[in-house]
Amino acid sequence: MIRVLLVHDECLVRTVLARWLARESDLKVYDTSWRGALARVRSARPVVCAADLDCMDTYGIPPLGELCAPGGDRPVPHLLVLASGNRPGLLKRALEAGALGYVDKAGPPEQLLDGIRTVAQGERFINDSLGFGFLKAAQMPLTRRELSVLSLAAEGVSMAEIAGRLHLSHGTVRNYMAAITRKTGARNRIDAIRISRGQGWL
Amino acid sequence: MIRVLLVHDECLVRTVLARWLARESDLKVYDTSWRGALARVRSARPVVCAADLDCMDTYGIPPLGELCAPGGDRPVPHLLVLASGNRPGLLKRALEAGALGYVDKAGPPEQLLDGIRTVAQGERFINDSLGFGFLKAAQMPLTRRELSVLSLAAEGVSMAEIAGRLHLSHGTVRNYMAAITRKTGARNRIDAIRISRGQGWL
Repeated sequence: MIRVLLVHDECLVRTVLARWLARESDLKVYDTSWRGALARVRSARPVVCAADLDCMDTYGIPPLGELCAPGGDRPVPHLLVLASGNRPGLLKRALEAGALGYVDKAGPPEQLLDGIRTVAQGERFINDSLGFGFLKAAQMPLTRRELSVLSLAAEGVSMAEIAGRLHLSHGTVRNYMAAITRKTGARNRIDAIRISRGQGWL
Repeated sequence: MIRVLLVHDECLVRTVLARWLARESDLKVYDTSWRGALARVRSARPVVCAADLDCMDTYGIPPLGELCAPGGDRPVPHLLVLASGNRPGLLKRALEAGALGYVDKAGPPEQLLDGIRTVAQGERFINDSLGFGFLKAAQMPLTRRELSVLSLAAEGVSMAEIAGRLHLSHGTVRNYMAAITRKTGARNRIDAIRISRGQGWL
């Protein structure tokens, strides 16, 4: 039996997906929202975490690190993400978090079963249709520092406060914002936030 | 038999949901993405459109009007929306589009079955748990004109261009933005966009 933890924020969808998975005789299925994911990883001890990359609680950035964090003698589950090709920034985050499998939500559901069984063996699984998304993820133009500045700006924090929080001068923050706007091909700050969010970088 | 058209942008989720619905002996189920919804309403002639309010193609604003637009001798389907209480602006849009049913995605999937069967009779269906969302929707502070200004700003359009597009003076656009920022309790324009998007108003 493969112990699978399904992580998805919408109860209605999660329940139907979990029941659908549970019809497979080789799967033992648990499910949780992102908020309860860490506790559930601890209690259910899954071999595979199948986690939806869209996350309502945190404005689109799922706490992927929680799922893969080693914890005492608990085995770290293999991470399989349900992704979409048009949010390359989220693909990049999943890569950085060490996800082993990538299922395209734009494809048929049987791919999720293939993915679960493949990563349960410790093998990589990637839907071909996500290829272009990975290509774009590799081209993500912003540095880590630029992303920190933009994330704060996107939360509505003023330039002066961003400078204070990141221990930078006002001029440096302004320079970062100018670089971000140029690199994202944006018309202004609001446009840079819009573009970056659309790409799943923020 | 109740002819149901399920509208959801994620193929994987949509397919599993449609199969789950199709197990009910009184339902005949069709499914489509938002992009193909209007054509599918025409061809499948559903009695109920069960439509997910989260829509990837249009940055969160589903083209609800399309589903309910009368078209020749075709009967207009009853609209049932899959909603969440934390995006009251989308609830408000669904209300304005004439949706008859409101299913909370944070609840169990059986509510979707109840909802479909209820609105198929032409009767209203609302999950109690959406009550607070409706309350907040009723308190939406922005006027239609203010929303137009904010929508353009959120797309990265400059203040000068917004003035041009809406045939307003620069000063008027600035006044609208100031009113929007004040009414939403925001710290600045970016914050006003963030808050309004979180509420599903944009």
